Amino acid sequence: VSRIVTLMTDFGAGDPYVGVMKGVMLAVNPELHIVDLTHAIDSYHILGASFLLSTAYQYFPSFTIHLVVVDPGVGGTRRPLAVVTEDQYFIAPDNGVLSHIYLRYPDCVVRHITESHYFLPTRGNTFHGRDVFAPCAAWLSRLNDSSLFGEEITDYVRIPVPQPVQQGLQITGQIIHVDRFGNLVSNIPGEMLGELQQQHASPPPKVRVEEREVGALVNAYGDRGEGQALALVSGTGHLEIAVNRGDARRALALDVGAKVTVWFEEGK
Amino acid sequence: VSRIVTLMTDFGAGDPYVGVMKGVMLAVNPELHIVDLTHAIDSYHILGASFLLSTAYQYFPSFTIHLVVVDPGVGGTRRPLAVVTEDQYFIAPDNGVLSHIYLRYPDCVVRHITESHYFLPTRGNTFHGRDVFAPCAAWLSRLNDSSLFGEEITDYVRIPVPQPVQQGLQITGQIIHVDRFGNLVSNIPGEMLGELQQQHASPPPKVRVEEREVGALVNAYGDRGEGQALALVSGTGHLEIAVNRGDARRALALDVGAKVTVWFEEGK
Amino acid sequence: VSRIVTLMTDFGAGDPYVGVMKGVMLAVNPELHIVDLTHAIDSYHILGASFLLSTAYQYFPSFTIHLVVVDPGVGGTRRPLAVVTEDQYFIAPDNGVLSHIYLRYPDCVVRHITESHYFLPTRGNTFHGRDVFAPCAAWLSRLNDSSLFGEEITDYVRIPVPQPVQQGLQITGQIIHVDRFGNLVSNIPGEMLGELQQQHASPPPKVRVEEREVGALVNAYGDRGEGQALALVSGTGHLEIAVNRGDARRALALDVGAKVTVWFEEGK
Repeated sequence: VSRIVTLMTDFGAGDPYVGVMKGVMLAVNPELHIVDLTHAIDSYHILGASFLLSTAYQYFPSFTIHLVVVDPGVGGTRRPLAVVTEDQYFIAPDNGVLSHIYLRYPDCVVRHITESHYFLPTRGNTFHGRDVFAPCAAWLSRLNDSSLFGEEITDYVRIPVPQPVQQGLQITGQIIHVDRFGNLVSNIPGEMLGELQQQHASPPPKVRVEEREVGALVNAYGDRGEGQALALVSGTGHLEIAVNRGDARRALALDVGAKVTVWFEEGK
Repeated sequence: VSRIVTLMTDFGAGDPYVGVMKGVMLAVNPELHIVDLTHAIDSYHILGASFLLSTAYQYFPSFTIHLVVVDPGVGGTRRPLAVVTEDQYFIAPDNGVLSHIYLRYPDCVVRHITESHYFLPTRGNTFHGRDVFAPCAAWLSRLNDSSLFGEEITDYVRIPVPQPVQQGLQITGQIIHVDRFGNLVSNIPGEMLGELQQQHASPPPKVRVEEREVGALVNAYGDRGEGQALALVSGTGHLEIAVNRGDARRALALDVGAKVTVWFEEGK
Repeated sequence: VSRIVTLMTDFGAGDPYVGVMKGVMLAVNPELHIVDLTHAIDSYHILGASFLLSTAYQYFPSFTIHLVVVDPGVGGTRRPLAVVTEDQYFIAPDNGVLSHIYLRYPDCVVRHITESHYFLPTRGNTFHGRDVFAPCAAWLSRLNDSSLFGEEITDYVRIPVPQPVQQGLQITGQIIHVDRFGNLVSNIPGEMLGELQQQHASPPPKVRVEEREVGALVNAYGDRGEGQALALVSGTGHLEIAVNRGDARRALALDVGAKVTVWFEEGK
């Protein structure tokens, strides 16, 4: 039985919006364990939410329900969705906020939630997090069967996820997230680097972000001196540009969108 | 049995004050489910907290205990209160922070908490959230009987809640809250608009905020173009001035206190 | 059985790092009750975290597990620790973040966590909060025996904790924390003042912060007029300089490091 619901929204911490969603869920299922992922998504930043979700969901137990409410189209015609992958559930608006999930699970089942008797009876047009998504997540935790919520669809919205490009021994990607420490997280997955390195028996690759060379890939922040820029595969599973005990965004004056280049040398 | 406690404070997220209150409660009742409403109330902003509480408590299951600690008079003579409405409990200082609740439930029972054996034995004069309110909330969740905490009183503090004024086919109110999206929330309840519209068989009313006309009431943010100002009844249940995918506070350069006017036309 | 884990980190609220740690813990022990102390520790501010922890842990039930992840040395040679005092557990990196705990419990048992089968199998070098500390805390909550995690050590890192100095009837200390209200919290414990006052049958001592006299110690914020500076023993258990309904940091233009002087007069 699913008992954990995670929450990711752009609601911030200043209003009781998130707390109200929790009240609605607990009224349906008092046994729920609700975990906040983050509520500080930039307003309406759908791609950023999709990326952050893709770095977090896999650390939760099987059949956790991930509820994502970044929903600028609330009250319009965008559909509410219930998605099942191998062993996780997702409830979200059909605006592309699950794009990374769709890429990773091409066989996932996506349903358009139409069974409105699961919604709050007083449903309005401005806060579907409370009126639609929260009650559906809580009912799903009790029913464990997403097919009760509506028909499967295949024309759900995917937004283009910028992908790293490999050309010979070089990979080009970009910064897609900056975390609270000022670490610049790229869209280049650690596995991609590992495979290429092994394939060519290379030493660790060299890394450049825009015009700035940051040396060979290291293993830990402390592998460079304090205040020095470095590149490593971080906890998100992606290549990251950081400054040891410093703030890379500020130190390098770079932000989301900056171009990252990695190149290998042929080993012997 | 009450198992849910909600928390609303002005303690912010930078100090462990809120966590400590939770520790105190869990020591009394390890089965509690504690839900944060918000801890970002402007320091000592009692009326704002009272309003936000009035938009949130009703989404929780019956006999939830709502703990509100916005308490500039801590350590002085203001009384701690336990309040029961039809089906919810409130624990708060007697400074008016429950004024909206008193207005909505004229028959609620208000008690002065005097049974100090429920307090922490080490009670001081500066942090009654921890020493008085949290343990009382947790004991109430176990005892389910607020009469054990002290005598009923009738001279509790109410602060004036600015009310919308109706004159014929016109309603005048004001902005009383700005949320994280910059939406301007007024004190005009959606029901008031609905009734008047039905009574006069009117088309949707027109709305003005200060000198700025924002057109007829719409149903959803997307009913106006991106960047356009609009008025709707929002998730708080109140008339709200918003900008589709934008920040109304910034775009209109308005804030709490701005005057809102709504007028209906006689239908046929 | 331990069922409560508290969390203190410098991870902020903008990333899902904290949520991911909770997912990892719930996968090990679905019965856990996880309480956030704060995630807004200044990046890498080890001494500040140690102080805040020392004002909070004692309000939790016996055998709560306190998980502290302020870890600038992650991925280097610093050791992960499991610490037991009389009735509380602590899991933290060996960088001094438990220094206040060591001072208060000289007999505590400190173990170097080496049993890596409790770690996540995919452990990396950049996010031991997720890969090492969270799973160890969750396993400790199930096993209730810290000796399973590794050998006792005695050469753990202590950082110098600035101590107040007593000379005759005078105590000198310093501001070590500023809270969300702008209250200036010093390192002078309330008990120290109480003992000296009793010993000399003194009236309440006088207090100075840098060159600014703030009068005799009072009992509550409201004992001075609105906007007036004052000194009291606050909820943290320490001497605090505050401004009634105001922000002392801003009003007095003082911050962490400011010198605080308290002096008693001989009673009769």
